[in-house]
Amino acid sequence: MYKNEGRRRRTTGVSAERELVSKLWKQGFAVIRGPASGSRIKKGVYPDIVAIKNRHVFVIEVKKRAKLDHIYIDREQIEKLKEFARRAGGEPLIAVKVAEKRVWKAVPISNVKEVSMDKCRIDKGIIEQAEDLMNYLNSRINLGLDSYLSK
Amino acid sequence: MYKNEGRRRRTTGVSAERELVSKLWKQGFAVIRGPASGSRIKKGVYPDIVAIKNRHVFVIEVKKRAKLDHIYIDREQIEKLKEFARRAGGEPLIAVKVAEKRVWKAVPISNVKEVSMDKCRIDKGIIEQAEDLMNYLNSRINLGLDSYLSK
Repeated sequence: MYKNEGRRRRTTGVSAERELVSKLWKQGFAVIRGPASGSRIKKGVYPDIVAIKNRHVFVIEVKKRAKLDHIYIDREQIEKLKEFARRAGGEPLIAVKVAEKRVWKAVPISNVKEVSMDKCRIDKGIIEQAEDLMNYLNSRINLGLDSYLSK
Repeated sequence: MYKNEGRRRRTTGVSAERELVSKLWKQGFAVIRGPASGSRIKKGVYPDIVAIKNRHVFVIEVKKRAKLDHIYIDREQIEKLKEFARRAGGEPLIAVKVAEKRVWKAVPISNVKEVSMDKCRIDKGIIEQAEDLMNYLNSRINLGLDSYLSK
């Protein structure tokens, strides 16, 4: 990890979020991206993206990586994502893009493992097998989020 | 209107939005504010605020004024608000704060009049008689947004 890693990752993060917002909008979702997204100020207050279609609410944390590998996320960040989703009556999830694979994948929150006091991890294998994001979202909408909520 | 009027209004706009976000969060809503809110870049892309509780989605344009008077809004802005709400299955509305009155009021989109090719207006009288914002939102949730959607 070189000196500007943090900054580089935030820049990449913002462009990934914009790409995903545009993709979701084209698919008919109402989509909003949090303010100062990718910056430290935002962290822990807003989710990266909220996408809504016909009252189905998806609360999304966006992760983009160059290569397929485990992804670590602050546990606090996951807790905030869950709390936002709880209030909204929506589903929290992680949208992952591995640049070399060129697809967006959906990782349900149940596949995010707590690995320490302050860190969570999405295993490489989970990401590899994760469903295509758009297929996932549409299947959740067709299924009805109610089944998620009562789980 | 003095030289920096536009800029001043944007600054006021952002602080009003932050105040409203905080108020809504305390009332149990999931709330997100659009990026670069108040700036020209954002205009026409995102609503100012999206507030969600238990799958009831409110798509909100925020207006703060020092004194009670007519409020003019770009018609394009209103159209975008409606489109976002249509996709979300939610309700578009204007949250108005008149500083001297110290309360937030809710103006339903049906009370926003088209007055020219590119401008809409909320009449002073409408603002004066508008319901308290929190009461309005809670009554809409209790009523069920379905009745709004089928109107």
